Amino acid sequence: MPLPYRWLTSMYARYNGSGLLIDCGEGTQIAIRKKGWSMKPIDVLCITHFHADHISGLVGLLLSMGNAERKEPLLIIGPKGLRRVVESLCVVAPELPFPLEFHEITQPEETFSLHGYTLTAFKLQHRVTCYGYSLSIARAGKFSVENATAYEIPQRFWGRLQKGETVCEDGKVYTPDMVLGPERKGLKVTYCTDTRPIPSIVEHARGSDLFICEGMYGEKDKEEDARKKKHMTFYEAATLGKEADVAEQWLTHYSPSVTYADQYLEEVQKIFDRCTTVKDGKTKTLLFEDEETT
Amino acid sequence: MPLPYRWLTSMYARYNGSGLLIDCGEGTQIAIRKKGWSMKPIDVLCITHFHADHISGLVGLLLSMGNAERKEPLLIIGPKGLRRVVESLCVVAPELPFPLEFHEITQPEETFSLHGYTLTAFKLQHRVTCYGYSLSIARAGKFSVENATAYEIPQRFWGRLQKGETVCEDGKVYTPDMVLGPERKGLKVTYCTDTRPIPSIVEHARGSDLFICEGMYGEKDKEEDARKKKHMTFYEAATLGKEADVAEQWLTHYSPSVTYADQYLEEVQKIFDRCTTVKDGKTKTLLFEDEETT
Repeated sequence: MPLPYRWLTSMYARYNGSGLLIDCGEGTQIAIRKKGWSMKPIDVLCITHFHADHISGLVGLLLSMGNAERKEPLLIIGPKGLRRVVESLCVVAPELPFPLEFHEITQPEETFSLHGYTLTAFKLQHRVTCYGYSLSIARAGKFSVENATAYEIPQRFWGRLQKGETVCEDGKVYTPDMVLGPERKGLKVTYCTDTRPIPSIVEHARGSDLFICEGMYGEKDKEEDARKKKHMTFYEAATLGKEADVAEQWLTHYSPSVTYADQYLEEVQKIFDRCTTVKDGKTKTLLFEDEETT
Repeated sequence: MPLPYRWLTSMYARYNGSGLLIDCGEGTQIAIRKKGWSMKPIDVLCITHFHADHISGLVGLLLSMGNAERKEPLLIIGPKGLRRVVESLCVVAPELPFPLEFHEITQPEETFSLHGYTLTAFKLQHRVTCYGYSLSIARAGKFSVENATAYEIPQRFWGRLQKGETVCEDGKVYTPDMVLGPERKGLKVTYCTDTRPIPSIVEHARGSDLFICEGMYGEKDKEEDARKKKHMTFYEAATLGKEADVAEQWLTHYSPSVTYADQYLEEVQKIFDRCTTVKDGKTKTLLFEDEETT
């Protein structure tokens, strides 16, 4: 339920000029503006499931994008029925100036190669069909100038080899493995709401630099409610994070009954000390291991 | 466009336990909560037209009403096509625990007798079919104990006569005019957005204690934009208020280009000094002429 000072849950990831938004409830576009961000870079929108708090702000977002004279297509990814639901909501936005492309997920797990990153959708366990998403950015091995020189590779091919391309010229073949060291650790973010805790979440969250996970209830006596409504308690969520051994876990998607999420933090961190409760607008810049903030 | 610190335009009127909401854009339910008000008393919802900024928050409102275990029906009044639009938006709210009743306006003007007040819908001039609404509360004449005594009307009938009922008993007929003085001035509020300024607005706004009217642009050079987009400038709006000779006029529904509406106030008040620019959450309690605030 959208509350004053607490927007509905969604995630906005930026990478290399691209924008990925997961879920768009009522007011998400206002939350983005309040943060001072632009909707313009969003080229992929993932919907976890068709409950209103995750999709009811979609029309407003699309219209605002249209008002900003967007011409670029927007790819929308979501459960089966996506096109029907979005078109139904768009009854009040019949003329968008940019095209919508739909991908309806039909498998329990699907992987997409998008703008330089990999997106994996995996099925969760909620009252309706619902997917979690992992966003992974691979990182090639380090470029070895020494090897490139030893193999006598013309310098004009270095960039393409570094990007993983194989280059053929004058009967010679240059392959990336000639100049690149072993693949280095990339980046991974996993987003998971709404769901019961299931083993598949642990598998998909493993290796995440950031694991954003629903925690509906902090109250100890709400385990039964969580089970019934197909949500999780903070403690169930933290247990998933611990089992997946993620670098950092954020809890979100609190029930209106949770007024101060922080009051449960001590108990949560007894289970997993890298798990924390977060508030609206929380952001994090993830860097490759030996990169530094500019 | 919903902005941080500026919700979409709507009006919530309370009278005698009833609640009337006009329009429900994205975030309107949050604005209501922020104001500390409840959605529970809302029994009539009027939609001016089917542009997203006036209706995209409807599903969220209905779901929140449902979450609050509402069982009472909600009457929704709006232009032709209302049921189709609302049902289409409700694709993400398939199971509301209370019934929706629809009234689609088909005439240029329609009048409804609702919970002790009269609601008149009248056609505006926008890019799509759009209605303004006047809410009137009639006030009967003053009850004369002197007359009631002179006519020997049993005291147990006084209340019914005062409410305008005719009472027959033992072959005698008691009519309200026996005990009530001439009808007194009631209350009237007129709400008008989105539209070009047209004479019908003046007619309907006449006699209003409060006239809430769109004013899209304060900038002097935006008259052409206003005309093209079928909106009004602040000055066109103020001219309507002046012609209708309303007791008080509020401007609302500003373009995102209007950052500080107040900067145009001096010019506006040169046209009509009872016209003012207002901000989110502005409220007013209207009292019958000789009533006093409790």
